[in-house]
Formats: sequence, C-alpha cells, structure tokens
Amino acid sequence: MTSSKRCRVPGFLASGIHTGIKADGRPDLAMIFSKRPATAAGVFTTNCFKAAPVLLDMERIRSGRAQAVIANSGVANAATGEEGIADALTVSRAASGELGIPDDMVLVASTGVIGRRLPLSKILAGVKPLVAALHADGIPDAEAGIMTTDRFPKIACRNGIIGSKEVNLCGIAKGAGMIEPHMATMLAFVMTDADIEHDALDRAFRHSVEHSFNTVTVDGCMSTNDTAIILANGFAGNRRIKRGARHLGRFSELLFSLMSELSRELVRDGEGATKVIEITVEGARTLRDAQRVAYAIADSNLVKTAFFGCDPNWGRIISAAGSAGLSLPVDQVQLFFEDLPVFSGGKGIAGREAALAEVMKRPQIRVRLGLGMGRRSWTVFASDLSFDYVEINAHYHT
Amino acid sequence: MTSSKRCRVPGFLASGIHTGIKADGRPDLAMIFSKRPATAAGVFTTNCFKAAPVLLDMERIRSGRAQAVIANSGVANAATGEEGIADALTVSRAASGELGIPDDMVLVASTGVIGRRLPLSKILAGVKPLVAALHADGIPDAEAGIMTTDRFPKIACRNGIIGSKEVNLCGIAKGAGMIEPHMATMLAFVMTDADIEHDALDRAFRHSVEHSFNTVTVDGCMSTNDTAIILANGFAGNRRIKRGARHLGRFSELLFSLMSELSRELVRDGEGATKVIEITVEGARTLRDAQRVAYAIADSNLVKTAFFGCDPNWGRIISAAGSAGLSLPVDQVQLFFEDLPVFSGGKGIAGREAALAEVMKRPQIRVRLGLGMGRRSWTVFASDLSFDYVEINAHYHT
Repeated sequence: MTSSKRCRVPGFLASGIHTGIKADGRPDLAMIFSKRPATAAGVFTTNCFKAAPVLLDMERIRSGRAQAVIANSGVANAATGEEGIADALTVSRAASGELGIPDDMVLVASTGVIGRRLPLSKILAGVKPLVAALHADGIPDAEAGIMTTDRFPKIACRNGIIGSKEVNLCGIAKGAGMIEPHMATMLAFVMTDADIEHDALDRAFRHSVEHSFNTVTVDGCMSTNDTAIILANGFAGNRRIKRGARHLGRFSELLFSLMSELSRELVRDGEGATKVIEITVEGARTLRDAQRVAYAIADSNLVKTAFFGCDPNWGRIISAAGSAGLSLPVDQVQLFFEDLPVFSGGKGIAGREAALAEVMKRPQIRVRLGLGMGRRSWTVFASDLSFDYVEINAHYHT
Repeated sequence: MTSSKRCRVPGFLASGIHTGIKADGRPDLAMIFSKRPATAAGVFTTNCFKAAPVLLDMERIRSGRAQAVIANSGVANAATGEEGIADALTVSRAASGELGIPDDMVLVASTGVIGRRLPLSKILAGVKPLVAALHADGIPDAEAGIMTTDRFPKIACRNGIIGSKEVNLCGIAKGAGMIEPHMATMLAFVMTDADIEHDALDRAFRHSVEHSFNTVTVDGCMSTNDTAIILANGFAGNRRIKRGARHLGRFSELLFSLMSELSRELVRDGEGATKVIEITVEGARTLRDAQRVAYAIADSNLVKTAFFGCDPNWGRIISAAGSAGLSLPVDQVQLFFEDLPVFSGGKGIAGREAALAEVMKRPQIRVRLGLGMGRRSWTVFASDLSFDYVEINAHYHT
C-alpha cells in the first residue's frame, strides 16, 4: 500500500471556482466528473432535518450509478423546505445540461449555514466556468471549493495492484465543526478507477465509513448535510471486483486506509484543535458499550479543555466514563496515558506527574481505558476544546 | 410564599473557615449542625465512580436521620479507593467527637479535584475552630466554605405558614462546572425547621431535585461527588407533616420554589456563563423524548457558542434536535425564540433578523421547540459556552 501525492485518478476530472457565495474570494463551488458513468455508493447523515441535497442524493444513489458531483460551500440548503429541494434540482439540471449527461446521474452537496436559500444566480452563473475548468489535476481545486472553516485541505490517495492492474483511489473531505461519530464528516468524495460491482462497493464503503469517519468527533454535533460518496469508474481495467472475491479484500484495505487518513485529518483540523486524543476503550462486554464509554469521554468538555490546557486531569476521564450510563466494575477499571498506568484498583496511581506532563505536550495522545468486563473495544479520535473553537463558533453565522 | 434574606433556620447553626486546602485563603471547610437530630434525605450522583464521601453518606442516610454535615472544597476525595473511605471516616469522627454526637449522625461531602487524597492534617486541625465558629447566622460562611470556581454564593430562603406555624427553609449550593442533568449540582444542603415524616420528606425532596437541579446543565458533565441533602429538625413545632397530608403540598411548594432558585443560580454562575438559555421542548410523545431533545439542544457546543456570540443561529438548534435519535415529523416541528416563530413547515421563516438580534441581547433567552407528536414537555436551563469556560477548565487542576 503506497500513499501517492499525485492526486489523479484515471477517467476523473475535477474543478473548483469562486462564484461569490463566500464573501472573501475563496473557491465555493466544486465539481467531480467521471468520463463515463460510475458505480456509486453513499452514506448520509441520520439527522431528521436532512438538507435538500441529501434528500435528493439519497433518492438518486439508489440506482447505484452516478457520473458527477456538484457541491457548494457557504450555504447548506438545509431547513429550506420544498424550495430547497427545487433549488437543489435547479443546480443539478444546470450541471447536467452543461455536462451533457442525464440529470439523474448528478449528485449535489452543500455545506455552510443552515436555514439559508442557495444563492442560485451566483451558482448558475458559475456552472459554465466550473465545467470549463474540469481537469485531470483539478482535485485540489475541488477540495478548495468545499472547504468552510477548514484550515487545510484534506486529500488522500492510494494505489495498489489488484489482479495485475494498478488501481487508484483519491478522496477529498471537508469538515471542521459539526463533526460527530455518526457520519463524522460534512462532505467526503472518493474517486477510484477500480472496476467493482455495486453491491461490493456499497458494502466496502459502508464498512470503511463506520471505522473511519464514524470514529472521529470534534464537538459531538451531527450535521444536517453529512454526505460521503464514492464513485468507481472502472478505468483501471481490472477484472471486476465482486462480493466474496479475493480482490475485494485488497480494495477494501486501500479504501479503508485512505478514509482513515481523511478522518484523522478532519480531527487534526477540528475547529480550534491543538491536539488529537486517541481514546481506546477495551474490555467492554459489547461493541456498543465500548462506543458509549469512548464517546462519553471524547465528547466531555471537561476532558477536552483539560487536554487543551496540557493538564493530565485523568479524574475527568474517569468521571466521564462513570457517567456513560453503564454499571462499571470500579475496581477492575484501568486507565493509561500512552503506556503509563494512572488509575487502577479504584484509585489513582501516585507519582506520575512528571511523566504525565511530558505526555501532555504531544500533538497526539493515546488514552486507553480497560473496563475489565469483556473483550470488545472501540477507538475514537477526538480533538481538544480551545478558545479558538469558541471564537470560530460564536461568530460563524454573521 | 415569600423569599427572605434572613438566612436563618431555627435550631440550625453553620460555619465556614479557611484551613489551608485552598491556597488563596478563601474558606474551604464548612459545617451545618442541627441542635437536635433531624430527619434527613439525600440524592446522590449516579456516576459509577462515586466519591468516598458519597459512598459513606449513601450508607448513613438510610437511617433517615442526621445531625451534621461537614464539607470541604478544593479536593474531591474521589478515585481514592479504600484510603479515601478511611479519610472520610476520619473527618467524620473528628467532627462527631468535637460536636459530641454519634458518628453515624454526621454526613460528609467534598468537592474539588478528583484523584487527590484529602489533606487530613489541615482538615483535622480545622474541625475545632469550625465547631467553635458555629452560629445561627453562619449559613453564608458555610456557603463560602463549599465554593470552588463559583463567582457568587447561592443561598435561597423561604418561609410560610403551615398549620398555623411559621416554617422556614434555607438552602445553599455550589457548582459551576461539571453541572449535568442528573444531579446537576455538586453540593446542595437544605435546612428546614419543619416537622416532617421521613417518607414524606424523602419524596418531596426527590421530586424537587428532579424538577430543579435535574433541569439545569452547564457542560453535560456529571460529577463523582454530586450530593443534595436536606435536614428537617422540627423546631417549627408544626403538626408533623405526613405523606398524603394536605400540608405536604404546601411544604413541597416552598421546597421546590427554593430549589428552583438555587438551580437557576447554578446555571447563571455556570463556568464562564454570560447567558441562561431556557429550552422548552413540547408536543413530545413521552417525557423521556422531551428530555432527550431538550438536552441534545442544551448540551450542543454549537448552540451554546452561538448564544455566547449573540448569534440567532437557529439552524444549530434544529440540527441538534434532529440528531437526538428520535424520528421527528420535520414538517410539524416549530421553533420559537421567545414568542417569535423562526422555523415552521420544514423551513426557516424569513425576515426575523432584526427582532432576533434584539432577543439575543437578553441575559435569559427562552427557546421553545414544538415537536407536534404529543402532549409531554420538558424545560432545561442551560448556560452558554464562552472563552472563560475554556480558560477556567484548561487550568483548573494545576
């Protein structure tokens, strides 16, 4: 498995331009286009108030086919009712018309402020130059077009040999706030030239989302717009990957590796984040128990602020775990910072201060909590909570 | 029902002194003493990692009787194992010895950093002067002794006529962070001179906790030390209040009113709080559904930072409600800021900006979300999330 900085996938073009949705001149409209219809799969927010583009995509992706994605940043087109759906359709039609493909082969995505209508005239005026800008090296431009409060772009690539053919994957993601376990990204698009059956792609993608985007949390807030889409156009010419086939494992490995990288980058760029906290809860009776405790810790503001302050306040981790709603065997619980035991047998272990102070200076810190109840475990990657998170979110809207 | 600033309850003495647990010279040890054994009830944290004083009190309060409370601030005596229990017992014995009462009539409480042993020598040296300082006007001193990051004391008093006798109630509370729905205070002590049966007192107290302390949230974090205790010493000479008696309603009213005041004060003093957000979820099918949605909103960092920024970003409220895990009828949901409708029929209502900007400037803002599913409702009082919350909690430990 190799990571490639060459952000190209055969048969895919991409672009990103500024249309005036964002006031500051940054790109705000992005497109991904496959030269031929691709096999498509998607995972979407479970929020009740799904944004209009999410509702549209959920309907369209049932066909298992798509050829283009058009996405805007700045306005989420969420909580916009029937008019929002009509707006999303208008954007889709403009894109499909300009691309000369059937309208139902276009997926749409939006990210930004909830409750505002799309600035249609700006977007519609942008579709022609957006399509004109499509380019095999345009993936970084597309990423720029979907960023909002992101401080850096998130692009990951993988390639590997599958059945004697080179297969390429490249993914882009945006998301810094409203990052939550269940669909923990606002937008992520993965392109691959693999030839793969829809059913196999769908399963591999869902499994990867579950173990990548769904293991990260910035603020425990699930967005109305979370969308992850994969398009596979078959340009690699490999023998078609099918469910149950040996090659599917290899493809899934590459896909998961790529999506893990993207999801870690999301946390590292969590709004105001200064650290990534890797929280593993092990020795749980069920997977669900492990997840429950892990997220209770990961989403505790007291834990997150302590990490921001480089304060090895392990009592807050214990307290958060203890309030997760499970009955924990207090005397069996063990807590480690990296490999340093800090809590065991129902009490703290003294004399760890100097070593802990060193650990707390790291940009990524591993915390491991053993429950002593069973054999299941779960790992979550969380950001800390800083002044900048408050600054960014107190003033994002206006 | 009258509120009284005279913080006295016949038959009760209180005191608070500095013993050196806190480095800054503020009071850190408090005592409440009833001249005769009182009927007692308590509600405690449901955290698995209950602090040593909580474990001790839960055992002792089963008798339904107590005469004194000794409480320290600065160190929580939580996650301290068997040694912590022994320390709590040592403090209790010193207090009972000095007071000349049976040891099992003393309740203990601690608040502060988790994982540290009590500084016993300081506390033991303080017991004698603490008892010597006991005074009928000492309630404010006791309050000072239990405060940690609190910016102001929380003391509430009520008196009323019950069966031709004047009955007095006075409560003190502390808590600014780690404030969570289920036992939303770290420490609260209520004194009353009412003569009341244990069973009636216990029920009235639990009901009041459920509808006062359990309706407030600062950061969604439940402490290891949350303790609410009521002592009723019968000095009022009223005919004993029994379960099912007419007078119990009157007493419960006074008690609930007092505890509501204390709980609102806790939120108003939430760490770094600049606003109180009153969140009512109505039209829910069950009480549990209403609570679930209300806390999802109240504990959303994005909602809390928006209020801090005076930003009427109602989309974040809708998004938080939509991710609470219930299947909401999107088109039926209605959202109001004060009496101003902002979301209805699945979309935002335009043209509210100026009016909303005015609303956002208030120190207490009422938000009402109608789910359109049933008739149950729940109200939560939440603080906003500010720079100061991060400041306080990034550096509290060290």
